[in-house]
Amino acid sequence: MEETERFKRGWELLERIDGQAGDRVMENVGSISPDMARYIVEYAYGDVWARPGLDLKQRELATTSALITLGHCEPEMKVHMNGMLRVGWTREEIVEVIIQLSVYVGFPTAIDALRVAGEVFAEADAG
Amino acid sequence: MEETERFKRGWELLERIDGQAGDRVMENVGSISPDMARYIVEYAYGDVWARPGLDLKQRELATTSALITLGHCEPEMKVHMNGMLRVGWTREEIVEVIIQLSVYVGFPTAIDALRVAGEVFAEADAG
Amino acid sequence: MEETERFKRGWELLERIDGQAGDRVMENVGSISPDMARYIVEYAYGDVWARPGLDLKQRELATTSALITLGHCEPEMKVHMNGMLRVGWTREEIVEVIIQLSVYVGFPTAIDALRVAGEVFAEADAG
Amino acid sequence: MEETERFKRGWELLERIDGQAGDRVMENVGSISPDMARYIVEYAYGDVWARPGLDLKQRELATTSALITLGHCEPEMKVHMNGMLRVGWTREEIVEVIIQLSVYVGFPTAIDALRVAGEVFAEADAG
Amino acid sequence: MEETERFKRGWELLERIDGQAGDRVMENVGSISPDMARYIVEYAYGDVWARPGLDLKQRELATTSALITLGHCEPEMKVHMNGMLRVGWTREEIVEVIIQLSVYVGFPTAIDALRVAGEVFAEADAG
Amino acid sequence: MEETERFKRGWELLERIDGQAGDRVMENVGSISPDMARYIVEYAYGDVWARPGLDLKQRELATTSALITLGHCEPEMKVHMNGMLRVGWTREEIVEVIIQLSVYVGFPTAIDALRVAGEVFAEADAG
Repeated sequence: MEETERFKRGWELLERIDGQAGDRVMENVGSISPDMARYIVEYAYGDVWARPGLDLKQRELATTSALITLGHCEPEMKVHMNGMLRVGWTREEIVEVIIQLSVYVGFPTAIDALRVAGEVFAEADAG
Repeated sequence: MEETERFKRGWELLERIDGQAGDRVMENVGSISPDMARYIVEYAYGDVWARPGLDLKQRELATTSALITLGHCEPEMKVHMNGMLRVGWTREEIVEVIIQLSVYVGFPTAIDALRVAGEVFAEADAG
Repeated sequence: MEETERFKRGWELLERIDGQAGDRVMENVGSISPDMARYIVEYAYGDVWARPGLDLKQRELATTSALITLGHCEPEMKVHMNGMLRVGWTREEIVEVIIQLSVYVGFPTAIDALRVAGEVFAEADAG
Repeated sequence: MEETERFKRGWELLERIDGQAGDRVMENVGSISPDMARYIVEYAYGDVWARPGLDLKQRELATTSALITLGHCEPEMKVHMNGMLRVGWTREEIVEVIIQLSVYVGFPTAIDALRVAGEVFAEADAG
Repeated sequence: MEETERFKRGWELLERIDGQAGDRVMENVGSISPDMARYIVEYAYGDVWARPGLDLKQRELATTSALITLGHCEPEMKVHMNGMLRVGWTREEIVEVIIQLSVYVGFPTAIDALRVAGEVFAEADAG
Repeated sequence: MEETERFKRGWELLERIDGQAGDRVMENVGSISPDMARYIVEYAYGDVWARPGLDLKQRELATTSALITLGHCEPEMKVHMNGMLRVGWTREEIVEVIIQLSVYVGFPTAIDALRVAGEVFAEADAG
């Protein structure tokens, strides 16, 4: 069944990229809207993240850069900074991305992202 | 002289990354504010782009992702989509970045970025 | 006296739409700037919300959609999600609006709005 | 076949809501990325717009409010203001939505939306 | 009559600050929504701009800084850069504001504002 | 040494404008990225804030207006509202700036800025 394939493929990717941090967000989403949780798995992960053409490191770099630029989605920024670590970026590289983006989104937005990165690193150390 | 080093290093990088499209933007900036043009060369390119820690392809991916997310800076989006081509990304990969970001910034912002990419590709074919 | 009419009309509407949640925000605003609190009552509610042409349900749908899209005004998002409940929208419909908007503003902004909606529903249950 | 169902359902809805203005945007999208065009039909229209829970008028009001708030996606704002007319909103109501939103997004963003609405109305008059 | 006072006071201020550029915007607004044009005159200018506490130069600096930061309202950015010239700022000072803001909103948004400033200065030279 | 001059000049300005609130932000930035902290001192303060052409009061008004408009950088908004007090603006004037900007960025963003201003004033009273 097509739907099941999309969901299964998406779930595996979401687990691999976002780990426990992603689980927590998905649980919260699912507790209010199971359909939205399903769309995130089926469409965002099962359809889009699963595409060839870019590898997971490149997709996560683009994604986190977008979240840093948006500025107001701190929980999702955390999930994807954590995701960057999980797919192979180092802490130094994440900080370097923020320095690069400070030129394009301004210092205040970048300073906030740096604080979030610091929290992600501290949680990784603690956990 | 330190200042000259920063400017020279920045100018070489700007030429390499942005080529003629970057020249045009810098000429426009410089005709109204020579100091702002100098800061872009010295600081944005000479200090930040010149850093180790990420390669030019990675920096340009982060930069273009930020510009797609901002949405309102079309001339700079063009410069950096063109820059992506110049530092080694393919057209297919640029389109793939936009598809990836459509999940995080919404379809309308992504559709606009796709139109800009189409214009960049057409200009590359023409010129 | 015209001013009094605008204020009175606005205050009645604000009470009807936003209830206690609105009172709290207005108290906070008024404690720092009584004039700004007055403008919100007189102009935003007394002039604009009081207009014919759209009913309160339609105005609150447009308002909450704007606040979800802005993303960074969580206290006001809460006031107007609560307002949606008060003027006749159901919880299911509010969640449906967020699913609809996820297509246009991206999943992260929508996930944050869903979390805020969950808090509004929990507070309604508690209080 | 599930995929075909989603596409067919989405295409019918897109035609009904957006008409020729939507066709033009989809053609442009499809000429650069057939996959993104397919996702818009299958996912945005076939999955989300096709849901029960809100009617087309309500979905289009939320959508256009989001696009007015984003501010930078003028072609999509046009498609969905046109869509509002097609699903049953009047010109007067569209203007009323913009007046309502001016309170929440500020006058400049609302003035721009009003100009776009004027262009949509003029194009509708022209044929 | 209170309404007339607010309108008259607002109209005089709008004329003084924005001149012909403001007239054009107000005509466009008024041709689609006379009520919104009236609110801009009565409320934005008659109530807010007319307040003591900040002088016109300070109000126009804050306003233009906000429009530069929003990034997507180019016609209004022009009106208020022109307004800065009319209430006593020099061209050099407007450019200096853009350089200052480039630190806080990023270079691309500032480069766009600089281009708009260049157009405002050229139009002032032309007549 | 040129670098040292830029850093020294920047540090003195940062101390003078932002005081302890700025120190705390810089410490946080420096604990994660010493290089980004250095750029803020050298470039943002040493190069840009140190320029002639606008005085510190004018620069801080433009900066805070940008941060209010961005909406999502609350810690930096606090630093610069505090900076406004330090370079000579009164509390009444800061509130007046927020009222002025409410017209251009909408009430919700302004209400949030007013709350932040209230916190800055309370901290100043406490400490």
